[in-house]
Formats: sequence, structure tokens, C-alpha cells
Amino acid sequence: MIGIDDEKFIRGKAPMTKQEIRILTLAKARIGESDFVADIGAGTGSLSIEAARLAERGYVFAIDRDESAIDVITQNAEKFSVDNIIIIHAEAPAGLISVPRIDVALIGGSGGRMREILTSIDKKMKPGGRIVINCVTVQSLYACLEWLKSNENYRYDAIQVNITRLQQVGDYDMAKALNPIHIVTARKIQLKRVANVINMSDAIFKENAETGKKGKREPGNLSTC
Amino acid sequence: MIGIDDEKFIRGKAPMTKQEIRILTLAKARIGESDFVADIGAGTGSLSIEAARLAERGYVFAIDRDESAIDVITQNAEKFSVDNIIIIHAEAPAGLISVPRIDVALIGGSGGRMREILTSIDKKMKPGGRIVINCVTVQSLYACLEWLKSNENYRYDAIQVNITRLQQVGDYDMAKALNPIHIVTARKIQLKRVANVINMSDAIFKENAETGKKGKREPGNLSTC
Amino acid sequence: MIGIDDEKFIRGKAPMTKQEIRILTLAKARIGESDFVADIGAGTGSLSIEAARLAERGYVFAIDRDESAIDVITQNAEKFSVDNIIIIHAEAPAGLISVPRIDVALIGGSGGRMREILTSIDKKMKPGGRIVINCVTVQSLYACLEWLKSNENYRYDAIQVNITRLQQVGDYDMAKALNPIHIVTARKIQLKRVANVINMSDAIFKENAETGKKGKREPGNLSTC
Amino acid sequence: MIGIDDEKFIRGKAPMTKQEIRILTLAKARIGESDFVADIGAGTGSLSIEAARLAERGYVFAIDRDESAIDVITQNAEKFSVDNIIIIHAEAPAGLISVPRIDVALIGGSGGRMREILTSIDKKMKPGGRIVINCVTVQSLYACLEWLKSNENYRYDAIQVNITRLQQVGDYDMAKALNPIHIVTARKIQLKRVANVINMSDAIFKENAETGKKGKREPGNLSTC
Repeated sequence: MIGIDDEKFIRGKAPMTKQEIRILTLAKARIGESDFVADIGAGTGSLSIEAARLAERGYVFAIDRDESAIDVITQNAEKFSVDNIIIIHAEAPAGLISVPRIDVALIGGSGGRMREILTSIDKKMKPGGRIVINCVTVQSLYACLEWLKSNENYRYDAIQVNITRLQQVGDYDMAKALNPIHIVTARKIQLKRVANVINMSDAIFKENAETGKKGKREPGNLSTC
Repeated sequence: MIGIDDEKFIRGKAPMTKQEIRILTLAKARIGESDFVADIGAGTGSLSIEAARLAERGYVFAIDRDESAIDVITQNAEKFSVDNIIIIHAEAPAGLISVPRIDVALIGGSGGRMREILTSIDKKMKPGGRIVINCVTVQSLYACLEWLKSNENYRYDAIQVNITRLQQVGDYDMAKALNPIHIVTARKIQLKRVANVINMSDAIFKENAETGKKGKREPGNLSTC
Repeated sequence: MIGIDDEKFIRGKAPMTKQEIRILTLAKARIGESDFVADIGAGTGSLSIEAARLAERGYVFAIDRDESAIDVITQNAEKFSVDNIIIIHAEAPAGLISVPRIDVALIGGSGGRMREILTSIDKKMKPGGRIVINCVTVQSLYACLEWLKSNENYRYDAIQVNITRLQQVGDYDMAKALNPIHIVTARKIQLKRVANVINMSDAIFKENAETGKKGKREPGNLSTC
Repeated sequence: MIGIDDEKFIRGKAPMTKQEIRILTLAKARIGESDFVADIGAGTGSLSIEAARLAERGYVFAIDRDESAIDVITQNAEKFSVDNIIIIHAEAPAGLISVPRIDVALIGGSGGRMREILTSIDKKMKPGGRIVINCVTVQSLYACLEWLKSNENYRYDAIQVNITRLQQVGDYDMAKALNPIHIVTARKIQLKRVANVINMSDAIFKENAETGKKGKREPGNLSTC
């Protein structure tokens, strides 16, 4: 099941995706057990780790530009004993180059480059795949919606989530707000005729994922760290 | 995975637990695949059906006092081909009499009897079990928190969830609020020494659940409908 | 005081600015008693009427493109006996042509032309004046913020307001959400050297406003309706 | 007008009623210019000061049990040059003893004694008067609603307010939530026959308020500090 308690993660300086937002993001992403998932702006890696447990026979590509984030993701991957996360220390969208074709993309941070990231993700995204984007600024939300509106291969829905936690103070339960967040869920349309092209790096991955025993995969020549 | 789209359910007159609230409720409930789950105030059965898919080797006891709700649950169980829901047409807490020991309880509606329902649930609840309560009124939230505060065997956390959906109107995305809801999650403490008592009806159920083939269970003498 | 109860207004088909949003909008606008106020997308006129009571020695220019809105504003102005509202049946920004220099602008609806409307308002806006914008779509909020960011004469702050009303149902208080709204408040900077230009129609208005007795003003040659 | 910017107030350790909540509270209170207002749990005095500017020919009785709050209120009253605030250093409801008959009561903090405070306020409250209560805990909201439901002389409405501020971070506007708050507004019913009783201390006050010149009032034998 999804929804690891926030305090179980090793946390760095970066803000972490809170449990409730993680739960909704992962549920909206509908990750299958053999899926390939890209997590852009992975931060503490909390989403990556939960995604990796769902895609137990797939891979999660956790991308972050910040070195301290990479450290924290590595520590969390170890703590939770997930061995199917490939950690990529690079800025998006450049960091997507080494990622094979994917079933799901999660965007937790876009560093102001939402459009370019979405365009790069689209090239890797299989028909029927899903992109789930968490937006905390008006500008990233707008950029994301505009990209989706102008791209006829995608359908989307979007919600804003305001979570308030009731903090127990003596005999009282006091309302403490978390910052609201928008979650945009886009689905790439399953086209009637799918081009019969084999992407080599994808094929290699798929083979590893399907035939390899767990914990004994060779993810190939990816620029991991 | 959890989070069936709202429009996939057959809906009656009663309000349905919306997708996002269902996702959070189920994730907080941490239903195991052999769990016994009681769903009190089951309504359309949307939570029951998702719970039944998670507890694939367990049972869900869907209780509702309203006959039209019972009809809708039955139709939804058929539509989604889940055969491990036992539908109980009764008012809570009376409807809980025929329920064996449970791992999880979901409370979607209390009909003003929150305290009695929680007391009855407690008697059936295994140590380590979880109760997840959705409250839409100040009074049911208060009653639920007071019961939990006065019962030393439980620890809880509580959140309020405000979901706003962005409705696509031409080129615009317009904010449309869903009604907010409180989700209270209580865990029964795992006591150090657990009394060595066997509850007969529970034992019968457990046997059915563990040895019986799926789709070929005899749930015994329950007042189902 | 501000905050007329919603049900006291005559309402048309258009959605009305709810009491709490009206209160916050008017308080943020800091309307003075001799102010000239433009209300763009006036709708039912609820904001115009409250603004007119605050600017008791000034004028409110209520602009709407929709004929039925014009009817409802007229009826409400009559019902609340405010005689300092000038109702302009025109689309914005064109409808702003006949408006003199203003101290305050309220934007309740932009019909997708936020940038043009803000540019037109700016030409009429006195240094030190305020614009308060209510946004219900991501796109109008974004356009409004971008315009303000690119215009160095303005400082702004912005909030999102989620109001939930507790509806009394028997002994219970049930949470019913209103749709959330963004309120952006912009202040035009008071420049050190103010150009010494007299706008004639403004001068005429000002004279009327300052010397005229209440209920005996001639607002001149405006295209009112 | 109402809605002094938060940063203009001298602030102590206690949390201050944020601008938007102050605006809504004051608008719902409908304070008249000769009104007597009690502010229970006055904290920094931000509500008291704005109330005192509205009730310019009346008085505000600011009550707080915390000595440091009393200091901050005193400083703020001086800073904003309001001379019609009477500061009472006492716990509520005891602190209400020295308060004459009132038109409006504001409750910002109840210290767990909501019912007693409301009962004491009721004794001082004129028919037609208003009580506006800000609640941050489930328990104070519940206590307040229960008291109002059981008291046939009052009608109420209640809202929950979630404010999110958009913080400008470089080119971005980032959502930052304030803690949600419930605002309950109660009106004491105007009875058909009002008892013709003169409350002496009230009469003395009223006389001071009506005949006294501003800045030259003798509020009598109140236990002020």
C-alpha cells in the first residue's frame, strides 16, 4: 500500500511531498508493477521510493539537479531497501536523455522549465501513459495547463488539494494548514495505430525488467550516481 | 491500485465518497490482502468495492440502513465483479452484531450515533487494527474525537481535506470546490499480552478466508441481503 | 459598514460575488468617501452598491456587457437607494472610455481580456490608486499577475480565499464549500513628481463630486444606460 | 475602513488575528459608531483597535488574562491613537463583570471556557446585539455551536475561512497557507417587548459616551489596567 508516514523518511533541506499529496499523486499515476517511471525533481525521493515499491518489476528514474537531494534519495533508497531506483544527478529536461521509454512521469519540481520538461517527457512517453504534476506556483500550473491544452495527444484533469492537520494540543484539536498544491493528471491518448518501432535502450530495459531476477539487474549504460 | 473514477460507479440518491477522499481513506486504512473490513454507512459501496479489491483474500462487510443503498451496493459489487463483499441491511451499531473480528473499520456515515458505533466496533477490532472515519459535520467529528480521547487503547491523527476541481470551460480552468471532509485515522494499540480467546464465528470466517477458494466461500449465518 | 447579506440583493442569472468575498474585496480596495470607482464586470451590482455607499461623495462606474446584468444592477441600485452609480452597458475595456480618472478599480469579470482591461484601467488610475481583481480561473489569475509583474508602477499582493459555510441540518452543522476565488490587490505607486496634467472630464467630475449636494449631481455627458 | 496591514501592529508572542480574518470578523460584527464592544481574548489588540475606530463614540473593552498581551494592547492603542479602549487584565468570564451592557462581543480566545463566557456575555448583551467568535479548535467550535443551539434567543451562521497567500519568490507566486479558522456570527433576537430596565453602570457609560467629548471620558470605576 501507499502512504509511508512522513517521519519515516530521511529528510534533507528541500521540502518533502507530504503523505497525503504523495498518496493522491501515486493513486492518480496508476503505476503498474512492470512500469518504468520517471520522477523529475525527486527531492527527498519519497515519491520515487513509493513508486519503486509499486513498480516492483519495473524501474524508477529519480532525477534531481541538487547534489544534496541526490544524497538524501540514495539514503532513503537504502533505508527502504528498494533496488529498482536509478538516481540521475542532472537538471531536467537534460536528465531525461538517459531515460528509456516510460509509462509514468511524476513532476515534483520543474525549476521554471515546465514546457521543455513536458516536451521531453512526451518523447519518452508510451501511448496510454500518465504524467502527474505537482504545482506549487501559479506560473508552473499555468505553463503545465497551457502545454496540455495545446497538445492534442493528452487529456487531463486537475485538482487543488488543501490539507489541514488537526494538531493535538492538550484536550484540543487545533487546525494547522499545509500549503495547498495543484495536482494535474494527464493521460497520453492510446492511438489506434501504434507505430511499430522498437527503441533499443527500451528493449534492453524491458528484457532486464521482465527476465532479470529482482536485485540482479543491469540497467545498462545510464549516467547514474 | 486504488482510486476508481467516480463516474464508473452506479450511483443512487445518496452522496458518494469522491475519488480523492476514497483514495486517502483507503491509503490511511492500510488494508491487507487477508483483512476483514467493516464499512459502516456504505452508501453506494464505492469504498466497499475498493476495499474488497485490496482485501482480496479477506471480506468486506458493507452495512447500510437504507434499502436503496443496499440495492446500489449490490449492483456495484456485480459491476466490478467483487465476490468478497457481504452486504448487511441494518442500522449501525446493530448491524455490527453479525460481523466477526475485524482488522479495519471504515465509517462513512454514523446517523448521529458515532459513540455507540465506535464502542461496538472496538469490541470487534483486533489489536493493531485501524478505524478510518469520514466526518462531514462538526458534531460527528467532535463525537469521534471525544470517544478516541477517552479511550486509551487508541492513537489517532486527523486531517481536513478540501479538494477543488479545475473544470475545463473553453480555454479556461475554473475552480469548483467539493465539500470539505475530515478524515480521522485511529489505530488500536497492539497490547503486549493479547488475550488468548478464540471467537468462534471469527475462527469459522478465518478458515473460510484462508482455505476456501475464491468465489466459493460460505460466510455462514450472517444476516446478509 | 460593508457586507450586505447575499439574499438582500435582487439576483439575475449571473453568479453573484458572495458576501465574504465582497467584504474582503471592499476592505482591500480601501475606498474613500470621495473616490471614483470603476467596477468592471459588475454582474448583479452587489460590489457597485457597497462601493457606492462607501464613496458617498464620489461615483461608481458599473460596467457590464450583459444586458440582463444591467437590468439587475439598475434594480439593485434602486432597491438600495444609491444614486451615485453610473451604469455603463459596454464591454471592457471599451466601456472604460467614458470613465474619468479613478481612485479604485474593481474587476469581477474580464471576459478573457485581463491584460487589455488592466492597460486601460492604468491610463485612468491616479497614483496611489488601487485595483482589486477577483479571479476564478487559472488563466485570468496568471494574466493579471503577469501584467502586474511587468509593470513597475504597481505593487501587489494576492490571496486565495476558500469559504465553507456550515449549513444547519437538524442538530448538525454540515460543511458546504463555496468555490474558491483569488483576490489580487494592486497599488499604483505614488510617484515623487506627479505630472501636472488636468484631465478635463475628470475636473468636471471632481467639481460635481466636491461641490454638488448629494442627490443633485450632473455626471455630465457619459454614455450611461 | 477596516483591514489595517498585519505588519503595522506591534506584535507580542501570541498569534495575531490575520488581516483577512479581522476584516471578516469586523464586517460580520456590524459595529455601529456608538456601540459598546467587548473583545474577549484580545491578544495583540488588533481587533480591539479596529473595533474602537468603528465605534468612535463608543467603547471597546479589551479583556485578556495574559500580562504580556495587556502590554502589547496598550502599546498598540497608543500607536494607533485610539482612546476609547478600556483594557481589562482578567480571565474571562470573570473579566466581564466590570463591563456594562454591550452591543457587540468578539471572542478571539476562550481558554476552554466557551460556554461560561457565552453565558456571561449573554447577560450583558442587548437585544439585537451580535457575538462574533473565532474558533481554531474543534472543541471550541463545538462548544460554541452547542451553546447557540440550546439558546433560543440567538440565531447564528458559521463559516470556515481558509486563506492562502501568494508569496512572491522571484518570478513566481507560491501558495502559502494560513491556518483555517471558523467564524461564528450570532445575533440576539430583538424581542417584541423590551423590558424597561435601566442598568445603572450602563447608563453612566452611555452618558459618558454620548455627552462626553472625545478624549475626555471618565469610564468610572472599572477595574482597568
